[in-house]
Amino acid sequence: MSTRLKELVESLGGQLIGDADTQVSGIAPLSDATASQITFLSNPKFRPQVAQTQAAAIILSAADDAVVGADYHGARIVAANPYAYFAKAAQFFAARNAIPVVPGIHPAATVDPGAHVAASAHIGPNVVIEDGAVIGEKARIEAGCVIGRGVKIGSDSCLYPNVTVYAACEIGARVIIHSGVVIGADGFGFANEGGTWVKIPQTGRVLIGDDVEIGANTTIDRGALADTVIEEGVKLDNQIQIAHNCHIGAHTAIAACAGIAGSARIGKYCSIGGAAMIHGHITIVDHVHVSAGTLALRSISEPGQYTGFYPIAKHGDWEKSAALVRNLNGMREKIRALEKSVKQLTEKDNE
Amino acid sequence: MSTRLKELVESLGGQLIGDADTQVSGIAPLSDATASQITFLSNPKFRPQVAQTQAAAIILSAADDAVVGADYHGARIVAANPYAYFAKAAQFFAARNAIPVVPGIHPAATVDPGAHVAASAHIGPNVVIEDGAVIGEKARIEAGCVIGRGVKIGSDSCLYPNVTVYAACEIGARVIIHSGVVIGADGFGFANEGGTWVKIPQTGRVLIGDDVEIGANTTIDRGALADTVIEEGVKLDNQIQIAHNCHIGAHTAIAACAGIAGSARIGKYCSIGGAAMIHGHITIVDHVHVSAGTLALRSISEPGQYTGFYPIAKHGDWEKSAALVRNLNGMREKIRALEKSVKQLTEKDNE
Amino acid sequence: MSTRLKELVESLGGQLIGDADTQVSGIAPLSDATASQITFLSNPKFRPQVAQTQAAAIILSAADDAVVGADYHGARIVAANPYAYFAKAAQFFAARNAIPVVPGIHPAATVDPGAHVAASAHIGPNVVIEDGAVIGEKARIEAGCVIGRGVKIGSDSCLYPNVTVYAACEIGARVIIHSGVVIGADGFGFANEGGTWVKIPQTGRVLIGDDVEIGANTTIDRGALADTVIEEGVKLDNQIQIAHNCHIGAHTAIAACAGIAGSARIGKYCSIGGAAMIHGHITIVDHVHVSAGTLALRSISEPGQYTGFYPIAKHGDWEKSAALVRNLNGMREKIRALEKSVKQLTEKDNE
Repeated sequence: MSTRLKELVESLGGQLIGDADTQVSGIAPLSDATASQITFLSNPKFRPQVAQTQAAAIILSAADDAVVGADYHGARIVAANPYAYFAKAAQFFAARNAIPVVPGIHPAATVDPGAHVAASAHIGPNVVIEDGAVIGEKARIEAGCVIGRGVKIGSDSCLYPNVTVYAACEIGARVIIHSGVVIGADGFGFANEGGTWVKIPQTGRVLIGDDVEIGANTTIDRGALADTVIEEGVKLDNQIQIAHNCHIGAHTAIAACAGIAGSARIGKYCSIGGAAMIHGHITIVDHVHVSAGTLALRSISEPGQYTGFYPIAKHGDWEKSAALVRNLNGMREKIRALEKSVKQLTEKDNE
Repeated sequence: MSTRLKELVESLGGQLIGDADTQVSGIAPLSDATASQITFLSNPKFRPQVAQTQAAAIILSAADDAVVGADYHGARIVAANPYAYFAKAAQFFAARNAIPVVPGIHPAATVDPGAHVAASAHIGPNVVIEDGAVIGEKARIEAGCVIGRGVKIGSDSCLYPNVTVYAACEIGARVIIHSGVVIGADGFGFANEGGTWVKIPQTGRVLIGDDVEIGANTTIDRGALADTVIEEGVKLDNQIQIAHNCHIGAHTAIAACAGIAGSARIGKYCSIGGAAMIHGHITIVDHVHVSAGTLALRSISEPGQYTGFYPIAKHGDWEKSAALVRNLNGMREKIRALEKSVKQLTEKDNE
Repeated sequence: MSTRLKELVESLGGQLIGDADTQVSGIAPLSDATASQITFLSNPKFRPQVAQTQAAAIILSAADDAVVGADYHGARIVAANPYAYFAKAAQFFAARNAIPVVPGIHPAATVDPGAHVAASAHIGPNVVIEDGAVIGEKARIEAGCVIGRGVKIGSDSCLYPNVTVYAACEIGARVIIHSGVVIGADGFGFANEGGTWVKIPQTGRVLIGDDVEIGANTTIDRGALADTVIEEGVKLDNQIQIAHNCHIGAHTAIAACAGIAGSARIGKYCSIGGAAMIHGHITIVDHVHVSAGTLALRSISEPGQYTGFYPIAKHGDWEKSAALVRNLNGMREKIRALEKSVKQLTEKDNE
């Protein structure tokens, strides 16, 4: 299904230069786009590709347009943020090509009579919805999801197959949850008594704001007494663990395999790199960026980027450097001894 | 539903000071408790909050009671281990508020005629129980779980939705398994033949003792020839990987995102921090504590705490220190050269 | 069910020395094998056990046979690669003991009329197969799996329970996918616009070659515009994350808990250790081995083994070495000052 550029610009804004009736059927990078597609330039280093691309149209910034706009054969959309414009254009095409979601409850679903499912919602086969759960308008709960007692799921949210939401958790509107996600399992809370562990019942909930996305097989535990909170606009990648009583500030993005330990508090507009680990009970202010593979052991009170991982090397070189790291104290002692000797020599020399 | 303090003390022990008819309906921290709740003091640093708390009653140690007991307006329960007492009191309230589990097999479950399910067990919708499986008294198998051939699940165990247990694995009594857990998938075993991999069938089982808890999306692989063993009382957090032929000693606790490689043997009463990684084929004795983010490459034969992760820093500082770590050998060479020069100077000086 | 050695050798090759009618019913290590089993010697360090083993037969190399063959009481199979021979013999016994898979679609499965399922395939209870999906001959899709629109699954592939495959992904022949795996969830792609995130629709697919194995709870994201590709013979352990647009070369093995960030390209015949993390957009050539717990930040253009993790130590020793690592720059400054002083002293001395 193809679209005229003017429809795109009417919907998404931007300044159109060239033929507004140009038809485009999809979006692709500069090097791959065909003559029926639109492309985008979001990084000046790709400017030289603009003259060569086959694309029928291009999205680019005013700064890039001033340099390479004239070299380009097709229509241009000048946008303040070409990468965000690309994302929205891709959404525009995806929406056009999407198979419509059919409202209704599949006969192989098990919905408790005490649950409330909006008439416009889609409930797939083998979904289980327990007593007191509320599923919002146009929500889409795919095959095999299990929605516990009293759970609330906001309108237009989408749960892909085999998601589990434990009792009493609340999920906002337009939330996307990928397969294998577990929301609201018990936090890891035990009291030690003579070496054995006594379970502390986890009676808090998980509260998830609007416009959150949660990647496949990520887990978010319910709070111990208070709640675990994920604010609006947070984006979580796959296989992330968020422990009980964490609080993740709005619009923070966390990459895959990261772990956030219990009661950690992460600010708004932060980013946490892949496999980074945030210690329990620490606070990270807004606008902090923790690099991949980094363990944040203490609170971070100043915005900025923080890093800590061992540099990779050829195995033999690593062995040497690791042995020296273990023996840094020995190295320091040698420096101290040298300082002492040099001081004595200097004093003698000056006598 | 509220409870008199005397009922609590009859059930859990402790020395009651004050009005035994005081009614409490739940438990909360010192700062949050309302006048209808009981609270607890498990850390002396919170003593100053005791005089201010709204709570109708407090659990505390004899030592704390001697200092702050007199300042407190309500009833006191003096306990040897106030934190463990809190956990048990919370269990007491949770049990009172729990929705009773209904025995029986949901009509949307698929139970093989060759399986044995105790009459008091609860089998949820879309559960699949294969031939020869045995489900114990009052066990609770929630929606979407798949229980393979010949699996044994002990009495009072609870499997939350969407757990998978492969054939022949055995799970003890009072075990709690959270959603997304996979027990008994094949271990990662291959023989290399000219660059390609030949699969080694994994014919061992997973054996899980009594009173184990397993967090969401954790995976425990079956043994190659022998079994993978998780002893009684072990507590596993979310997203942990336990490889084939591991042996985890009783009452060991492992935090989220940790990985235990094949044939590793971890002792009793150990703790493994979040995202720690235990190498294959190593042995760790009882009472070892491995810190978060630490890779244990060799066996540990002495109790104690072990740590190894790169300290976090501002990104620019990390870049400098990482460059120096790579070049530690250069630093050592410089120290050696200095030592030589200083020795020569000293010898000359003494001539 | 027992087998004569001559059947084994007819099927798997190797040179048989001794009684070809020797019956064996299974395979076990040297120390555990009973008189009705066959054993194997794949590492010369176990040669001393050969004379003692109870096993009725042994698989070993010509080199080992020359040394210990004469000491052994039973029949011997001399093989070029005894460990690979063991793997194949174990497969031989496993196939004999396997419960046959019954072809057909379970009545509790939900198969769209627009899907094509081979008559010899097995579709378990609560499986959902959507419109346009194609399931190959003798494929086995176990309980609770969800197969999206247009997915292709090759012949003889096996999906264990509760696997999710998103729309349009393609899986080759003889692929094994363990429980909890999610194939084709959206990659983590967002454009930032004024601090909030705009989702980039993920319209690529996941393409998985023949003879791949994927461990429990591993996730492989679909590509953003192009596809994510896992070539033939790749072996993935549990809880691995493979991000959008990655390309994993044939016969590469990746251990548990590893993470491969977006658009990373890993060569053929590589191995990636447990919990290793591969940065996005980097290229690793064939025959590279990345050690466990290592973060590969830059492309690797030379075969070999690469390592980078902080050495573990007693906690107090680690604290000292970590403090020194943070202060390496101070140490370098001291060395420079010493070099300067020593130079001055030496010059004075030579005056």
